[in-house]
Amino acid sequence: MKIGIIGATGYGGAELVRILNHHPYAEDCILYSSTGEGNAYTDSYPHLRNLTKQSLQPIHIETIQEEIDVMFMAAPPGVSGEWSPQLAAAGIPVIDLSGDLRIQNPAVYEKWYKRKAAPKETIQNAVYGLAELQKEEIQTAKLIANPGCFPTAVLLGLAPLAQQKLLQDSFVIIDAKTGVSGAGRKASMGTHFSELNDNFNIYKVNKHQHTPEIEQQLTAWQPNLKPVTFSAHLAPMTRGIMATIYTEVTSEMSSAQLRELYSEFYQDSYFVRVRPEGEYPATKEVYGSNFCDIGVTIDERTNRVTIVSVIDNLMKGAAGQAVQNLNVMNGWKEETGLTMTPVYP
Amino acid sequence: MKIGIIGATGYGGAELVRILNHHPYAEDCILYSSTGEGNAYTDSYPHLRNLTKQSLQPIHIETIQEEIDVMFMAAPPGVSGEWSPQLAAAGIPVIDLSGDLRIQNPAVYEKWYKRKAAPKETIQNAVYGLAELQKEEIQTAKLIANPGCFPTAVLLGLAPLAQQKLLQDSFVIIDAKTGVSGAGRKASMGTHFSELNDNFNIYKVNKHQHTPEIEQQLTAWQPNLKPVTFSAHLAPMTRGIMATIYTEVTSEMSSAQLRELYSEFYQDSYFVRVRPEGEYPATKEVYGSNFCDIGVTIDERTNRVTIVSVIDNLMKGAAGQAVQNLNVMNGWKEETGLTMTPVYP
Amino acid sequence: MKIGIIGATGYGGAELVRILNHHPYAEDCILYSSTGEGNAYTDSYPHLRNLTKQSLQPIHIETIQEEIDVMFMAAPPGVSGEWSPQLAAAGIPVIDLSGDLRIQNPAVYEKWYKRKAAPKETIQNAVYGLAELQKEEIQTAKLIANPGCFPTAVLLGLAPLAQQKLLQDSFVIIDAKTGVSGAGRKASMGTHFSELNDNFNIYKVNKHQHTPEIEQQLTAWQPNLKPVTFSAHLAPMTRGIMATIYTEVTSEMSSAQLRELYSEFYQDSYFVRVRPEGEYPATKEVYGSNFCDIGVTIDERTNRVTIVSVIDNLMKGAAGQAVQNLNVMNGWKEETGLTMTPVYP
Amino acid sequence: MKIGIIGATGYGGAELVRILNHHPYAEDCILYSSTGEGNAYTDSYPHLRNLTKQSLQPIHIETIQEEIDVMFMAAPPGVSGEWSPQLAAAGIPVIDLSGDLRIQNPAVYEKWYKRKAAPKETIQNAVYGLAELQKEEIQTAKLIANPGCFPTAVLLGLAPLAQQKLLQDSFVIIDAKTGVSGAGRKASMGTHFSELNDNFNIYKVNKHQHTPEIEQQLTAWQPNLKPVTFSAHLAPMTRGIMATIYTEVTSEMSSAQLRELYSEFYQDSYFVRVRPEGEYPATKEVYGSNFCDIGVTIDERTNRVTIVSVIDNLMKGAAGQAVQNLNVMNGWKEETGLTMTPVYP
Repeated sequence: MKIGIIGATGYGGAELVRILNHHPYAEDCILYSSTGEGNAYTDSYPHLRNLTKQSLQPIHIETIQEEIDVMFMAAPPGVSGEWSPQLAAAGIPVIDLSGDLRIQNPAVYEKWYKRKAAPKETIQNAVYGLAELQKEEIQTAKLIANPGCFPTAVLLGLAPLAQQKLLQDSFVIIDAKTGVSGAGRKASMGTHFSELNDNFNIYKVNKHQHTPEIEQQLTAWQPNLKPVTFSAHLAPMTRGIMATIYTEVTSEMSSAQLRELYSEFYQDSYFVRVRPEGEYPATKEVYGSNFCDIGVTIDERTNRVTIVSVIDNLMKGAAGQAVQNLNVMNGWKEETGLTMTPVYP
Repeated sequence: MKIGIIGATGYGGAELVRILNHHPYAEDCILYSSTGEGNAYTDSYPHLRNLTKQSLQPIHIETIQEEIDVMFMAAPPGVSGEWSPQLAAAGIPVIDLSGDLRIQNPAVYEKWYKRKAAPKETIQNAVYGLAELQKEEIQTAKLIANPGCFPTAVLLGLAPLAQQKLLQDSFVIIDAKTGVSGAGRKASMGTHFSELNDNFNIYKVNKHQHTPEIEQQLTAWQPNLKPVTFSAHLAPMTRGIMATIYTEVTSEMSSAQLRELYSEFYQDSYFVRVRPEGEYPATKEVYGSNFCDIGVTIDERTNRVTIVSVIDNLMKGAAGQAVQNLNVMNGWKEETGLTMTPVYP
Repeated sequence: MKIGIIGATGYGGAELVRILNHHPYAEDCILYSSTGEGNAYTDSYPHLRNLTKQSLQPIHIETIQEEIDVMFMAAPPGVSGEWSPQLAAAGIPVIDLSGDLRIQNPAVYEKWYKRKAAPKETIQNAVYGLAELQKEEIQTAKLIANPGCFPTAVLLGLAPLAQQKLLQDSFVIIDAKTGVSGAGRKASMGTHFSELNDNFNIYKVNKHQHTPEIEQQLTAWQPNLKPVTFSAHLAPMTRGIMATIYTEVTSEMSSAQLRELYSEFYQDSYFVRVRPEGEYPATKEVYGSNFCDIGVTIDERTNRVTIVSVIDNLMKGAAGQAVQNLNVMNGWKEETGLTMTPVYP
Repeated sequence: MKIGIIGATGYGGAELVRILNHHPYAEDCILYSSTGEGNAYTDSYPHLRNLTKQSLQPIHIETIQEEIDVMFMAAPPGVSGEWSPQLAAAGIPVIDLSGDLRIQNPAVYEKWYKRKAAPKETIQNAVYGLAELQKEEIQTAKLIANPGCFPTAVLLGLAPLAQQKLLQDSFVIIDAKTGVSGAGRKASMGTHFSELNDNFNIYKVNKHQHTPEIEQQLTAWQPNLKPVTFSAHLAPMTRGIMATIYTEVTSEMSSAQLRELYSEFYQDSYFVRVRPEGEYPATKEVYGSNFCDIGVTIDERTNRVTIVSVIDNLMKGAAGQAVQNLNVMNGWKEETGLTMTPVYP
């Protein structure tokens, strides 16, 4: 299969290249970019010296049509709305890593993203690609809205309860921490080493655009759920997300029973590892891999549930899940090309 | 004033030395240690070359009695219970940085600390030294239980609401993040660079020994308060604590009113800086200083309050607050010797 | 092939497990340890949950003999001297990652390592496993002394000149920088996060035990070479070594010619990537991979050569090269199981 | 004394503000900037909340003339050449932190800086402000070219040998490592957290603009000295420079004698701390302070000298030395306002 990537020079694009380098069904990988046309890809990413000879190609729908079988869109916000319809018209399946096609309600998108929504039809055609939990829809989809990094960690952390409508409806608090690579490769004060190193920040308090994405999916599972509180923090590290989630359950259960519920829920999910009782994952333990590791407990003193969910934001939170979706769409084994062991330490 | 430090080789001790170097009323500083007797202090801390000629002294109550006017105890857990009574008998005021004298109920101490409590009388004589809020008791105290690092950030963050009994009684969630220096200088897997760098951990889930300290003080302010949820995380940085606190208030108020309430509450507190609306502190912004910076908001969607409180764990969370207590005990200006500007970046 | 690892709980061992997980000829992997017998390996390394069910086995030569076809020794110094002869007697090929068998002259070993050398016969049987440059010897070896991390970066950086006797004989200065994982997993002040983070250290000045290893090989190539200066620094990062090497060449050549000389020298070496003129590698660009990237230049002002050589110390500097040696010993393609792309960023 | 800062929004400016906050003779501090006029300084630097009420002032020579007694220039390259003459004409002493006035030969400046040199007269009036070693010239200067960060560490490290003409004339190799704050606050790929964290880089190989500054001063001391080799590396940390210098001496001496030579040379220099034999400084040991710590040794095997010199690049390497120069110019004690203890850990 011939694979295209629009927006290959960003971190999501580079991680796709790293994965597809070893994917058994990825015959060729063509890199498109709206800037830097003709430049060797290794000029942007010298860690790929000798591993790729690709140069950046301009985005022309006519040549794309002849060159590739599927397109990953790893471009900045606003680009998918433009290209997805054209690629659809050309019959090319698209997996979009941006947030543009994830929110079904354009008004909600525009409120949180502060930009114009993509065409309604495009949005409606997009299937939300939370790979573990939307397999059937993904299998027949031609357009995937690949989930955001925070929503992936949060939704996998809450799905076992929300799908069984066990969440106390007005009490979901999500305290999320991310590494800096989640902000992309663009230089800014918000990604400046001296501003972030040995420092811990909170940002977009109550305003993070991943909030409606989380709520849209949670209420699809448990319709009575009230708005959640979602806080994003920036930790001085490159990769990794930890979502610490506080909630209560409507049914009485022990910590062991809760843990068992999670374990059963994910028993067929290769990429979700529910930790033994009393063990909680650290972000480095999934570094460079497509795993989502989850620890859960109930505090006997307060009866509150704590859920700790970690991913590598560039893998399970972006490129890894995108390739997982590619696998599902093509009827390949979900973990094809994605079995890399976490790099630890 | 001649000042002694027991446990000078730990980070709390070293930070005391850094502060007292510039304190106008600290005439001399004598360093006691149960190990390394006779060694130059600069062998442990070469950053102090030329700045101190002290060597480590053995802990003999008779000589101590003649040498110093006040003692800081910066020793590991279990030591204060032994030495505080002897120092008290010798008429030497003590400021204890350990957790041993903070919990009034020995059974609670023993449950959370998994060790025997200090003698009941010693505990009862100890005044909890949350400097901004216990000034009167501190002024006349001979024995100070200096607050823990997490409790300092959390209690200063919640005091304006708890003292006015405005907290929803069953909804206080504290998600705290700390730098590694909080774990002290002892080498262990839990402080190993390769295990922590570029990594984010949660630890002691629902079991952190600072939990009862937080609850003891909160319920002193607002007696109907139910147990809180407190989670401690380890961020890959040396100094700094951020406590992100989620709660609700029982009285209707706007974000601006909440911010105003905090601002008034702390208007005479030099070390507490309430940030303007919409601004939240980062830990580096108090690095090396004794400030506690606080940002607050109410989310209109959920009506929930988010409080962000940051300190330098070795300063306001340990040595800085200890010296602040010394100042208050002696009737000096609270900020004497503690006006260092945060080191940024 | 069935593979054993003695000392599996260290970082070298864990990296071997990561690699062998995906090695096509590694049928099974048995983990031996002198401590923790019976413990699940995932208790030490939870990042391997679901990926290995191994528990730690005691080191009994009789059972080892029946269980495995080749042994990796990733144990602390002093252990190889004990076990290598027994494994040899049992007919099991050994690849030893320690420094114990690298120095041919026991007196030199004892001077630099400050411990007793291994039995002379064992040392003499050991082949120095610098995989790119000792292929023939490795193919027939039964006992490999896997090179040290610093020597690997340095020797690959200098081989093209030394093998052609082009080095100015009394001017080789090596300024090396390493991440902290090189110090192993043992907790100590030298690996304490708070001591190392945001800090840069030099250590073992003129006393690092990798110095004689470097000189032994360099003088094997260019016998007239005088002692080198080697300095080791500790950078606040987990993985990665950069050796910046300063020297002069005895033959007149331009920067372009020097670069060409390197390029030709390594044209058949998959794992050595000579960078284009004017480009120098950063350590992250080989993170998690078995590459050694090299940039070279001659300064026209001073006529001095600067060589920049980077590796991942746990991969090409330890476990990766060890598996490369396994491949060569068995006549497999050198890069079998080792083609992982660097993880960047 | 009323003090002005042009370019206050950079890191050098912010560090000047931190120092001058506590300087006993700094009555007032006025912050000038070519951008952001009217903005509160705390909008740029919230760590100064409550500590300064300054807003950014436009750079008008007429008002400057009436407002201040001395000006620090902490602006980007190219600005000093424009403003220094005007300030001189207005009779205002200037301490310039940029590199514009350091190189006496305009052709050399233009070759290394790739930009037009400042007016010749301005350059000739500028005194190179290496505070420990140019005291007399500084005392009477009206225009100070404050040394660069690397040259400060290197020149203090080499002065005891170069002033006595003891350096082997064709063998000075300087391998320097810096934290990222040396690159300033401007966002770029070269200061992007994800590109630098857990990574080690070399940059501007043989092309760093601090090279001629180092050579100009070294040859002023020891005229026969040949060009040096200077390499700059970027370590994943915020503050700190370590220069590891390799050389030989023309006179025979032991390690102890060399150490003694340094110790005597700096016996009256408060800010230079020569370490005991066998001890080498780490960058964190001068963090936030104005110290330059130096360790020296001679390797008996090679007869080569290794000099390890560390500074905080924003303090002794920029703002700290600038204030030290202010002190010397005014006949105040050199360490006035600069006695802050290093922040460790």
